[in-house]
Amino acid sequence: MNRMTAWGVDGIGEIRPGDQLGDIIADACAAPPNGPLENGDVLVVTQKIVSKAEGRLVEVNADDPLSHKQLVEEEATRIVRRRGDLIITETRHGFICANSGVDLSNVERGYAALLPLDSDRSARRIRDIVKARLGVSVGVIVSDTFGRPWRKGLTDVAIGVAGIAGVVDLRGTPDSLGRIMQVTEVAVADEVASAAELVMGKSSGIPVAVVRGLDPEWFRESAVQELVRPPQEDLFR
Amino acid sequence: MNRMTAWGVDGIGEIRPGDQLGDIIADACAAPPNGPLENGDVLVVTQKIVSKAEGRLVEVNADDPLSHKQLVEEEATRIVRRRGDLIITETRHGFICANSGVDLSNVERGYAALLPLDSDRSARRIRDIVKARLGVSVGVIVSDTFGRPWRKGLTDVAIGVAGIAGVVDLRGTPDSLGRIMQVTEVAVADEVASAAELVMGKSSGIPVAVVRGLDPEWFRESAVQELVRPPQEDLFR
Repeated sequence: MNRMTAWGVDGIGEIRPGDQLGDIIADACAAPPNGPLENGDVLVVTQKIVSKAEGRLVEVNADDPLSHKQLVEEEATRIVRRRGDLIITETRHGFICANSGVDLSNVERGYAALLPLDSDRSARRIRDIVKARLGVSVGVIVSDTFGRPWRKGLTDVAIGVAGIAGVVDLRGTPDSLGRIMQVTEVAVADEVASAAELVMGKSSGIPVAVVRGLDPEWFRESAVQELVRPPQEDLFR
Repeated sequence: MNRMTAWGVDGIGEIRPGDQLGDIIADACAAPPNGPLENGDVLVVTQKIVSKAEGRLVEVNADDPLSHKQLVEEEATRIVRRRGDLIITETRHGFICANSGVDLSNVERGYAALLPLDSDRSARRIRDIVKARLGVSVGVIVSDTFGRPWRKGLTDVAIGVAGIAGVVDLRGTPDSLGRIMQVTEVAVADEVASAAELVMGKSSGIPVAVVRGLDPEWFRESAVQELVRPPQEDLFR
């Protein structure tokens, strides 16, 4: 039977600039209760600890709640919408999100975290270290929490992938009645990030989750650009 | 440990107008391998079988791939964008999606499926029948597959909920460093729908999934309107 299990990884401490995340995760997942990991598991790692490990922290004025807004503009390639304090921007990665992904939550007071420069590379590095250290081939997703137009509430999405598809293309696959489906491209990496969020929680400080039981066909070389809609195809920017 | 498990429900046959979905699901989930269900499980039921059971099927010209486009306009309260064959509309429920949710896939040739009139009511009915039949209190989510601006690929979202929150409000909850978080409203029902999609698959014809292990605090009276952003708050319509 098709069964997926997801759990939060306990014991990842506070992450500091220069920390080697792959080693920290491999240590945490080598044995129960978090591990051992198996081939075909996916590690979902929140952006915040990737940014911290990679030193993507910038000092801000802790007494001014808007002091990071200049960073937001510096990190943006384009302002998409602005209303009051809310700024929706496009980042150099092509993501469209609030505040260019610049974030003060779960960061030491007086600092803001920027998005990783290349989250695919961050994911690959973790994947490679886990493979070398534990001998298992896992997919890695770096996740972040984005809003959406039209719908309330935030969901976690993938901002970096390694070894697991961003989008799975079901075009041409017969549906259950044998008809050829016209277009069904499923954003599996985003769905896995959302599933992982359910076991991490925003306030509980669990920054890594393991997802087990995904379709083996989804494991392949990939890049987060699979998930970024090209501007010319986009009706909403 | 915080552990979530999700699996597809086997043995749900082809659904026809007038079928009582709650009974069919209760029968399928009464015993292994799908059940027994437990208090606090969530049943995710795809829109397609809800629409079929509720007779939301309309004849279309099977030889004309665009014959359902008139239905799309009839089901819309507003055309949001149009480019070529692609029509993004707002439905009477307030959802913004392609083709007003009108869909030909996994429907008998010559028919199109419309969205349920009131998916919260559909979800409540299934919840009530499962409670009466199996004696367990479950959350129910009716899910559908929507596209998003800016990002490629589709994800499953909630279009109806019963007994499980649409959005969980973490505003004011301290983050892991003890700072007060400014705004974190998590769209848990959408994330659960996405998690369930990963074990159902678009072409495998599994229309129901069970998700176990969610936070007990998320189980409460709810409505899908929690997930619909009011037009005056929306920067993208």
